[in-house]
Amino acid sequence: MADICIIGAGSSGVTVAKALRDKGLAFDMFEKGSDIGGMWRYENDNGQSSCYASLHIDTSRPNLGYSDFPIDPSLPDFLSHAQFLRHLEAYADANGLRELVTFGTRVDRVEPDGQRWRVTLANGESRDYASVVCANGHLWDPRMPDFPGHFDGHVIHSHHYRTAAPYEGKRVLVVGLGNSAVDIAVDIARRAEHVTVSTRRSAWIMPKYLMGIPIDQWSGFLVRRLGLPVVWSRWIMSRLIRLGVGDQRRFGLPRPEHPMWREHATLSQELLPYIGHGYIDIKPDVSELRRHAVAFTDGTEADYDAIIYATGYSISFPFLSPDVFDPDRDAGRLYRRMVPPAHPGLIFAGLVQPVGPTIPLVELQGKWIAALLSGAFELPAPQDMEKEILEHLEDQKRTYLDSARYTLEVDFRAYAKQLRSDAGW
Amino acid sequence: MADICIIGAGSSGVTVAKALRDKGLAFDMFEKGSDIGGMWRYENDNGQSSCYASLHIDTSRPNLGYSDFPIDPSLPDFLSHAQFLRHLEAYADANGLRELVTFGTRVDRVEPDGQRWRVTLANGESRDYASVVCANGHLWDPRMPDFPGHFDGHVIHSHHYRTAAPYEGKRVLVVGLGNSAVDIAVDIARRAEHVTVSTRRSAWIMPKYLMGIPIDQWSGFLVRRLGLPVVWSRWIMSRLIRLGVGDQRRFGLPRPEHPMWREHATLSQELLPYIGHGYIDIKPDVSELRRHAVAFTDGTEADYDAIIYATGYSISFPFLSPDVFDPDRDAGRLYRRMVPPAHPGLIFAGLVQPVGPTIPLVELQGKWIAALLSGAFELPAPQDMEKEILEHLEDQKRTYLDSARYTLEVDFRAYAKQLRSDAGW
Repeated sequence: MADICIIGAGSSGVTVAKALRDKGLAFDMFEKGSDIGGMWRYENDNGQSSCYASLHIDTSRPNLGYSDFPIDPSLPDFLSHAQFLRHLEAYADANGLRELVTFGTRVDRVEPDGQRWRVTLANGESRDYASVVCANGHLWDPRMPDFPGHFDGHVIHSHHYRTAAPYEGKRVLVVGLGNSAVDIAVDIARRAEHVTVSTRRSAWIMPKYLMGIPIDQWSGFLVRRLGLPVVWSRWIMSRLIRLGVGDQRRFGLPRPEHPMWREHATLSQELLPYIGHGYIDIKPDVSELRRHAVAFTDGTEADYDAIIYATGYSISFPFLSPDVFDPDRDAGRLYRRMVPPAHPGLIFAGLVQPVGPTIPLVELQGKWIAALLSGAFELPAPQDMEKEILEHLEDQKRTYLDSARYTLEVDFRAYAKQLRSDAGW
Repeated sequence: MADICIIGAGSSGVTVAKALRDKGLAFDMFEKGSDIGGMWRYENDNGQSSCYASLHIDTSRPNLGYSDFPIDPSLPDFLSHAQFLRHLEAYADANGLRELVTFGTRVDRVEPDGQRWRVTLANGESRDYASVVCANGHLWDPRMPDFPGHFDGHVIHSHHYRTAAPYEGKRVLVVGLGNSAVDIAVDIARRAEHVTVSTRRSAWIMPKYLMGIPIDQWSGFLVRRLGLPVVWSRWIMSRLIRLGVGDQRRFGLPRPEHPMWREHATLSQELLPYIGHGYIDIKPDVSELRRHAVAFTDGTEADYDAIIYATGYSISFPFLSPDVFDPDRDAGRLYRRMVPPAHPGLIFAGLVQPVGPTIPLVELQGKWIAALLSGAFELPAPQDMEKEILEHLEDQKRTYLDSARYTLEVDFRAYAKQLRSDAGW
């Protein structure tokens, strides 16, 4: 009888499952949809995928794969969602994981029951476990801004964006300047009549390629191969990026007030050139919605047929009561970004957002969880876990301008080192 | 009674007309279609526009306008065809040129008649003139390659390409690696299932931006502002381009055997990144068409739904008998790239293809023609014109690898200098 439950069979769930199976740990695994893949399955019938047709992963192929299952080197630098899903499926099948998933089964409630956890499924059945691994993702619950006024045109959140087809010949406003916002603006640009991108406080725009090499391979080269200190490598990178994209103010994009490394940059090869071709223009924040027009904080107003809010996601665990776990309060207060000190049987996998690639980090999380659950090491006392969390929060405050926006942020290398040292590798 | 006839009201015809009118010279001007603009009028009813919906001029705005009618600086770096057409219309209207054009009137024949020229219109009417300015363009008569075998899918020449819509979900082969080929491949890439670009001998790929500045502004800056010799500026540019795009072999695009400046480069911001995202792949020349598949000279074969031949244009003057003027023989043998020594009453405007912008050069041609026709200077004796032509051809041989492909090529600065010196400016 399995004493571990995994919720969700996306890339995080599958990765943790592989690590548990490698340690001979039995588990139940529930997935709302009919197949694995989570956000990487286009139009996933679990309703939680934000995948659009043109989505490509912005981590380059060599940095993306599993340590024991590298990605086919004949694939391009940047995989499409479909190519990545095929890789994930091959990984799952090579490890016999698909048959371990109970598909079409939503988890409705996860409640503490003494030292154990009662998991109630949508069919009413309930089971109890010593540990529950929550791997249901954090990019599926759309966060919408609250602008005064009302807009009468077509309105969606980027979560529901699929293809440019509905925007053919339309005047489109994309709110946000993150990776999804820019990806979607570029995707629509050639088919829309015009696209405006509205940004509250701008962002650093980085190209996906520097001198023909994927940008994420540069930092690895500078730090790992040349052995340069991170500070030096960042300085070199920022010079190279300046050489690559020039001064973004030339394209109407303010330079953010923070230095390049204190917030996530937006990766786009096309945004600046597309502004230079008149496909896209940049506006500041929205000040008011006016039926068929939108007013901006610079006092300008323009007519639009559609608004796409690429304004990010709320972290949600609908099966957890806020008394037990309130994402706004608790998601940033997890020991090793995984375990709430008050509820050590609850483990969150994939609830991290590194500047680098996520998959290799979740692979490490999986191994850490497997080592923990097989008794290879023990969690510290609750007060020591709290101490680690406070140190992490201090660290974030030093690193990020607005740490609230970076709840899930981790430093790839430092975090990986911690996990390895805990498990004694 | 006008003694000059202008054929065609595209950008060249309009530009020459302005120069003639400025000199007080009367002319008749015939345009097959119902409005001015030539190739810049999308779906021009004269049937000769190769304009596709996403076409943007690859000369940046400051280098594009007329000397006395600059382009609105609020327009983007690279104008769309529609923006450029509006500029051309504003220029024509500001100079009262539209009312000087006889629209909907095709010229059927232009024949020598002693020292004069008999122009026969499609309605049968004929008039005679001392001079005929042929400004009917050289980018409208599709040149098709002759591959063995037969292809059963959809086949068009890039001349007839308009939008990506017909290629939604299709496997498309684009033959050619010139600017149109790459523009179209990129335009289709996000909507097609897959795009292959086939190239016989590759090309140098240059970005449209270097460090956020349009590439054509760099050479002007290095040569005109810094006063560097052209050789130095080219060396610097080739280093900068290498910094910008890296090594194109990494993307499967062979480095051409010729140095960067001995053939026209292909300008594209997106081609290499789109190869890196798997949207586009590169193949060598087609060896055989096999109904629904195409074989390439590297021995590979792939299935396609459509082929787009972006294989350039023949230079055509359907109203001139080959006895009088055979484009294949004579288009490259014009005094000052305008006047055939045997027929000094025949003048070709816009029959040039500089590495830099064409419009300012045609503006100079127009002024030169106006000066010539108003008697400000005289043509040299035929043998001296022949001598100038031979010098030009020698020059081309030194400059371009395959001079046959560069019949219309001129060196912007040297050519402009010649025209200015002829007219005594």
